[in-house]
Amino acid sequence: MKEFEIIKKFFSKLSVRKSSLNLNDDVFFDKKNNLVISIDTYVEGVHFLNFKNPHHVIKKIIRSSLSDLICKGVKPKYYFISGSGNKKTFSKYNLIQIVKSLKEEQKKYKIFLSGGDTVFSKKLSFTITTVGYKKKIIYRNNAKTLDDIYVTGLIGDSYIGQLVLKKKIKLNNKMKSYFIKKYYHPDLQTKISSKLNNFANTSIDISDGLIDDLNKLINKQQLSYKLNIKQIPISSNLQKLIKNKIIKNKSSIINRGDDYQILFTATPSKSGIIKKTAKSLGIKVSKIGKIHSNMKESTIIDENGNKIRTYFKGYEHQF
Amino acid sequence: MKEFEIIKKFFSKLSVRKSSLNLNDDVFFDKKNNLVISIDTYVEGVHFLNFKNPHHVIKKIIRSSLSDLICKGVKPKYYFISGSGNKKTFSKYNLIQIVKSLKEEQKKYKIFLSGGDTVFSKKLSFTITTVGYKKKIIYRNNAKTLDDIYVTGLIGDSYIGQLVLKKKIKLNNKMKSYFIKKYYHPDLQTKISSKLNNFANTSIDISDGLIDDLNKLINKQQLSYKLNIKQIPISSNLQKLIKNKIIKNKSSIINRGDDYQILFTATPSKSGIIKKTAKSLGIKVSKIGKIHSNMKESTIIDENGNKIRTYFKGYEHQF
Repeated sequence: MKEFEIIKKFFSKLSVRKSSLNLNDDVFFDKKNNLVISIDTYVEGVHFLNFKNPHHVIKKIIRSSLSDLICKGVKPKYYFISGSGNKKTFSKYNLIQIVKSLKEEQKKYKIFLSGGDTVFSKKLSFTITTVGYKKKIIYRNNAKTLDDIYVTGLIGDSYIGQLVLKKKIKLNNKMKSYFIKKYYHPDLQTKISSKLNNFANTSIDISDGLIDDLNKLINKQQLSYKLNIKQIPISSNLQKLIKNKIIKNKSSIINRGDDYQILFTATPSKSGIIKKTAKSLGIKVSKIGKIHSNMKESTIIDENGNKIRTYFKGYEHQF
Repeated sequence: MKEFEIIKKFFSKLSVRKSSLNLNDDVFFDKKNNLVISIDTYVEGVHFLNFKNPHHVIKKIIRSSLSDLICKGVKPKYYFISGSGNKKTFSKYNLIQIVKSLKEEQKKYKIFLSGGDTVFSKKLSFTITTVGYKKKIIYRNNAKTLDDIYVTGLIGDSYIGQLVLKKKIKLNNKMKSYFIKKYYHPDLQTKISSKLNNFANTSIDISDGLIDDLNKLINKQQLSYKLNIKQIPISSNLQKLIKNKIIKNKSSIINRGDDYQILFTATPSKSGIIKKTAKSLGIKVSKIGKIHSNMKESTIIDENGNKIRTYFKGYEHQF
């Protein structure tokens, strides 16, 4: 991934309209026209394991794309899908599966297919563009000192699903299907998305990993954070795996990515409204840490209360 | 290409918002928000020969993408570029070339890079998204009976450039560089684009081939056409190749595509304003045929006055 950071730097030399976000943010925002656009490319073997289950893969990549807008408080309205593949990829069976899953996603998220392209290529990849309209979005790099750090939903289940699919762990059928479903069909936080503007100072979706994305969220700011792993919510099924020693510990799974939950910060005074909003929507929103200005390094406290590692801002890391 | 027509049919089953164009048109148009979007994917070996000249390839695919909006009377404003490739593709040398050509295109067409994505893949491909704003666009399938058929600029040079690059014909250096330039840097008709609304009933850009695209332009209408190859304008350099028997005849090169000229139809009464507009802009606009309703088949008259072949609507053909 480091090479691609270099590429980003190259492209950032190109003039970008001032009214828009720079290439460092997740979405493009044309403030004057209230237009929000996000584009993502997914390559087989890199962003999804294989295409044996077109129905699942399509759902996963559609949700991953919608997540970029949803985490910014924007309701996706249109999407475009461009596929590069061969005759096998676009066999009649696969096409039926693709269309079926797109139909289901369209219904679930009230989005409309607005175009696309299908081209021949030996290597399978998809590019998905999502479009929404919004007067105001939540930017990156807008955290305030002493902000609380929040995360929606549960973390880590998707990674376990990936381990199951890669046959790296063995589980009983019920558990298997639970985690695989979480990997392929992440639960997008559409309900809270439209409320984010009421309390969030800055936000991002968790695709690379909770800690990696937290670093990204504030990477242009002179800020640090204190994060409590104990407060990061995981499912009861995942708790079982840890208890049964199938998974080493909580710290080892919370930065694996593909969660598509929303990570945001908010001024402490917003604590009440956040609790109230979460309760009224029936969703989980957890306070997992705090933004600081004076600490030179960010701090992470593990589930046993020990400082497990320090993360320097801008440093590329992996749990 | 036929397989991908089938795919289009599959996708067309998905619900598309009524206010927008259907998937059969070239661009997406959200009338309410005046938003126009076009997305195209370009694969190495399919849409461009190779990546030995990144500078040229990038210019070609950017122009090909802008062309979709320009032919509809829309000024492109933003573009997004997503590249899938390997370390060789995105070497420092290539990146410098890519950024250089993007900068030049940005300046030439007054467009702004607004985002994108770079992912790892063995196979090289690019997806380019172009965005513009317009209250009214020119649709496909909106020709009227007895409309004149017009084409801008010159046809066929790009194809000769491709033959040179594929080493299928040998030319002297001056001619070689003329045609290669036409292949890589097609002359987009930006000037007439904003005037199209004054006279054009329906329009398309020529990417697949003049006749193929004419068929596409009216494929949902119960109409036919009469086309005069003699009236299709070609460059004096191309005329020389035909005279010197390097190229068989005019008929063999006018449906080869990659011209990125605008093909449109207009009511006969608009003939005067079209002539005047072309003259004031200093560009070539040629009347090359007529739309008919009663003929069962479309007719093409070759440069010698002979009817060379009939084209049934909706039939897939190649010169």
